[in-house]
Amino acid sequence: MQRNPELDQLAINAIRVLSMDAIQKANSGHPGKPMGSAPMAYTLWSGAMKHNPADPSWIDRDRFVLSAGHASMLLYSLLHLFGYDLTIDDLKAFRQWGSRTPGHPEFGHTDGVETTTGPLGQGVATAVGMAIAEAHLGARFNRPDHQIIDHYTYALAGDGCMMEGVAGEAASLAGTLKLGKLIVLYDDNGISIEGDTDTTFMEDVGKRFDAYGWQVLKVDDGNDTAAIANALSDAKADPDHPSLIIVKTTIAFGSPLAGSAKTHGAPLGAENVARTREALGWPLAEPFAVPDELTAYLKMQKEDLARLQEDWEEKYAAWRAAFPGLAAELDECYSGSLPDLENDPEFWAFDKAEATRNSSSKILNLLAGRLPNWIGGSADLAGSNLTELKGLGWMSPADYTGRNIHFGVREFAMTDIVNGLILHGGLRAFGATFLVFSDYLKPALRLSALMGLPAIFPLTHDSIGVGEDGPTHEPIEHLAALRATPNVCVWRPADGKETAAGYIQALSRKGPTVLALSRQTLPVLEGSGPIARKGGYVLKDAPDPKLILIATGSEVELAVKASDVLEQRGHAVRVVSMPSIEVFEEQDKAYKEQVLPPAIKARVAIEAGATMPWYRYVGTDGAVIGLDHFGASAPGPVLFEKFGLNVDCVVDIAEWVINK
Amino acid sequence: MQRNPELDQLAINAIRVLSMDAIQKANSGHPGKPMGSAPMAYTLWSGAMKHNPADPSWIDRDRFVLSAGHASMLLYSLLHLFGYDLTIDDLKAFRQWGSRTPGHPEFGHTDGVETTTGPLGQGVATAVGMAIAEAHLGARFNRPDHQIIDHYTYALAGDGCMMEGVAGEAASLAGTLKLGKLIVLYDDNGISIEGDTDTTFMEDVGKRFDAYGWQVLKVDDGNDTAAIANALSDAKADPDHPSLIIVKTTIAFGSPLAGSAKTHGAPLGAENVARTREALGWPLAEPFAVPDELTAYLKMQKEDLARLQEDWEEKYAAWRAAFPGLAAELDECYSGSLPDLENDPEFWAFDKAEATRNSSSKILNLLAGRLPNWIGGSADLAGSNLTELKGLGWMSPADYTGRNIHFGVREFAMTDIVNGLILHGGLRAFGATFLVFSDYLKPALRLSALMGLPAIFPLTHDSIGVGEDGPTHEPIEHLAALRATPNVCVWRPADGKETAAGYIQALSRKGPTVLALSRQTLPVLEGSGPIARKGGYVLKDAPDPKLILIATGSEVELAVKASDVLEQRGHAVRVVSMPSIEVFEEQDKAYKEQVLPPAIKARVAIEAGATMPWYRYVGTDGAVIGLDHFGASAPGPVLFEKFGLNVDCVVDIAEWVINK
Repeated sequence: MQRNPELDQLAINAIRVLSMDAIQKANSGHPGKPMGSAPMAYTLWSGAMKHNPADPSWIDRDRFVLSAGHASMLLYSLLHLFGYDLTIDDLKAFRQWGSRTPGHPEFGHTDGVETTTGPLGQGVATAVGMAIAEAHLGARFNRPDHQIIDHYTYALAGDGCMMEGVAGEAASLAGTLKLGKLIVLYDDNGISIEGDTDTTFMEDVGKRFDAYGWQVLKVDDGNDTAAIANALSDAKADPDHPSLIIVKTTIAFGSPLAGSAKTHGAPLGAENVARTREALGWPLAEPFAVPDELTAYLKMQKEDLARLQEDWEEKYAAWRAAFPGLAAELDECYSGSLPDLENDPEFWAFDKAEATRNSSSKILNLLAGRLPNWIGGSADLAGSNLTELKGLGWMSPADYTGRNIHFGVREFAMTDIVNGLILHGGLRAFGATFLVFSDYLKPALRLSALMGLPAIFPLTHDSIGVGEDGPTHEPIEHLAALRATPNVCVWRPADGKETAAGYIQALSRKGPTVLALSRQTLPVLEGSGPIARKGGYVLKDAPDPKLILIATGSEVELAVKASDVLEQRGHAVRVVSMPSIEVFEEQDKAYKEQVLPPAIKARVAIEAGATMPWYRYVGTDGAVIGLDHFGASAPGPVLFEKFGLNVDCVVDIAEWVINK
Repeated sequence: MQRNPELDQLAINAIRVLSMDAIQKANSGHPGKPMGSAPMAYTLWSGAMKHNPADPSWIDRDRFVLSAGHASMLLYSLLHLFGYDLTIDDLKAFRQWGSRTPGHPEFGHTDGVETTTGPLGQGVATAVGMAIAEAHLGARFNRPDHQIIDHYTYALAGDGCMMEGVAGEAASLAGTLKLGKLIVLYDDNGISIEGDTDTTFMEDVGKRFDAYGWQVLKVDDGNDTAAIANALSDAKADPDHPSLIIVKTTIAFGSPLAGSAKTHGAPLGAENVARTREALGWPLAEPFAVPDELTAYLKMQKEDLARLQEDWEEKYAAWRAAFPGLAAELDECYSGSLPDLENDPEFWAFDKAEATRNSSSKILNLLAGRLPNWIGGSADLAGSNLTELKGLGWMSPADYTGRNIHFGVREFAMTDIVNGLILHGGLRAFGATFLVFSDYLKPALRLSALMGLPAIFPLTHDSIGVGEDGPTHEPIEHLAALRATPNVCVWRPADGKETAAGYIQALSRKGPTVLALSRQTLPVLEGSGPIARKGGYVLKDAPDPKLILIATGSEVELAVKASDVLEQRGHAVRVVSMPSIEVFEEQDKAYKEQVLPPAIKARVAIEAGATMPWYRYVGTDGAVIGLDHFGASAPGPVLFEKFGLNVDCVVDIAEWVINK
């Protein structure tokens, strides 16, 4: 189609006007950034970027991540104007109950939104994950003259994203991995909420990214679309370095408040909206109205964009015909289907005492053999988390096919990258560290949960069993904190079979799972097995039990031992192993009451962590044996003894509860 | 005293030998880094650094932060050798129960340990806080020819610290603030746990710090103590830029395993320990033995170091005599004493409906008038958190006396910096952001708690009351997660008076307090006031109550309204406001049972967040009305209605509980 510079400018202003109109109508939102970054975003979407509004799930589309998620109206305006499934009525319902245009973009909620953003910095890190996915899948599935996975990943970031450490962590890894098809547009408007960024952010961002091994490009005038287009072209031309394009812009360009921090997070006001229309030469006074000629022009663009996918479909068909084995493998990667792991005897073949981190290692490797798209790694603790997928190589710029990733000491970026790997499509991904460092990765895990991604996090060293490393390395509150997070499944297995059950259920969840794994050796429990998939089950029972001991992970062994003593003392005791409260709660009421009969009020829960999660089961009649204080540095067994996680204490407290 | 190069070298090797011996005896620890960085650490401690082993609390000492906390034996060896209160027996008890030499350095546990480290990256950020404290106090209290606060802050960091985003966040702010007296030694040994850092960390760290506005110095040979001394001298000579000294080292230098990742986190083994003694030419075979001549040499150094403080005491006395007003103010800053705020009527003068973030703003400013050392700010949300201390200026390189700090969009670094401000001494500090972003700052808050620092975090926008910004900005699990953390006090006030009570108790705690504050307007409650300092109290009662409604923050109003309806329906209802579970639990049993009589089993807790914290009070007989799912984007009042946090729902559930 013929480009029309006037209509291109009209389209840029349409983004500005729709954004300010929607924010004005909602009386809530962030107009400054959509108005300042409209030219770069439109230039990207209308020329540089490979996408097809008619099929937002096209696997070889370029990805676009709005890391500065508060500029959601920028994205919604683009989606509407380019003919994605987002109507003008959707824009009018911006930030209202039930709308498809929530305050920050939400993956799975609005077509064309590639990831949920808003918490700053994380979009950049998620984009790094998408770019890794592209590099990996491309290296595995492309063949000479057959480039079927071959797309760019773009992110649009602001000053806040650049200040957040997670973006730096991810950028450093992106530079190391030479992700040449990752392109970040930095909307450098020099304004954050507290005013001029000079008060707090005097660094030379370009030099910093150069240090990370990026190509750094600059556009001095954010309204100069030719310069933006050139920079995008230069960015794409460098295959060996990710590119940062620093675009100097004016926040709220076109409005009387342009350049002011006031436009960051509040509507412009009716009068300023009217004056902006004038300043931009916008032809229509009515809110949300778009000139017909622009609509027609954008419709032509949409048709052109559809042809990009048509061309690709031809190449894709040729590749499928030439490489049917690869095509089958790719289909399997994208299918989301799982082999029947529950009936696979190898998953249940645990017959000797070992740490659950060791059991986890076996399962991770079994899965690697059964799932061609199983990929992941650790934040520099592979040897402690035992996460290496043996024989499957380490990802590097020299060979992107490696299915082990050295994430570096970057727990937070790792988790966003895991999200990005999954969001890209075609991959199942995991990321590991110590459970105590779930604190570092939590903001990204929250996004996994909000997006419903089946990300898997084997987090080892799950209690004071850590021992000598001391309180900075001993999780206490972490199990509670993770369980309190909506849509996160916490799975703390007591032995190898429960570990297998945890992975199997994790793979089929619509949300992330944290596996809390022991550093120390645990016995093989009599009675564990596939039944553990119910989240909680009767591991050991007595006729007509009068007391229930509920435990998880390393404390199940303790519960069993205490129950032996209690039985010798004449008490009928049931032991319930509950690797996952969330999964147990998903069972039907009958099953739950069978495991925890309401009539048995004498209950004691045991877990080497904060007691908070367990009161829902023991109520005010029972007791929780846990740790509501920090750990200490000493050998693990000493700590269990000193802190009362031992048979004598459990027996004493159990008898106190029975006699209550 | 006369320097003796041979004895200096012997001292360096003593650090190496003591470190490997202690780790070997404990059969646990990290020998690689102490052995590689011994020369730089010794050079710093024995010549460049101003400290007095006889008085580790000297207010003008240089600060030393071992950011790479796993190298704890480096620090313990230094403390022992320089004559701090740490004996050879303490070293022999490394990583054992009750010892003064835990696995990672712990503030308050071992004299001379300036901060707890271990979780990587955070030592650098904490050091930035200490350097800000020095700049601020120096600017306020020094006078021409009277430099009484005039010291450097040193940190020793490794590759892991450099990879963690938090160090980058803090370094960027340090560059902006031109903290010329901050000096970071980067032990660049090129090895992390997964092996060569080239696999994941190819960036040019020096260039990155140059981009942050730092002076970057390099030492090519980590054993070249003259080069290290020169670099330290150059670092100190630049008053306008923080300095990074990149020192190339060999991990586990001297041992047969030198250069190997195996030495990072495991003892060398008895044979390698013996061979290392040989390679280093160490004269004594017996573990933990130090040559007498070295002991004598270090004793002389200790005496010289004591004279540094004696010299300062003279200057300090002269300053006190010349500026008695300033001296009184400094004494007040360091005293830790508080005015009688509880009987100060201004703190209770709340008589109109307002958001608790507005009440918080008033209290913050009242405190600013009463506490000369009250300092803090927000992570770029001052206008939303309402944290500005009016008329007290903003800290900048041009004027360090400002008591408001622009932390930038860096929640994590902010919190470590707040810790550093407090650890330095002389200051009370706070840091603010949205409650949902407590996720970003949590790893640092955990250290505040572990160290028992009275850091204060006003976290606003504390529920779905956030409204239109949607689920990425609406806290759900955060109150539970923070309450589960040992030694963190969570305070969620229901009105202005409860807000005042929260700040007053926070100031006298030995641990951090999070104030969860509303964005939306809340009424003034009849019955609130200083009684709230008990953490939980009867706000509204009925004769012989049959039901207790327990609520916090914005839901107290809801509980009161529901109780009115329930009373109209003939139920006798008590309303308990519980701004802080932790503080309530600190009350005596009689008080607690007076507020929550065990006989009244019909209890309903109401809080717009995860339900987990409340089962301990409602047991299995009551109910919790909360949110165990994510929020949504819509006006706040719509969300409360849609999600069942409304009078009708509370009444229905309360009647269901009564009739149970």
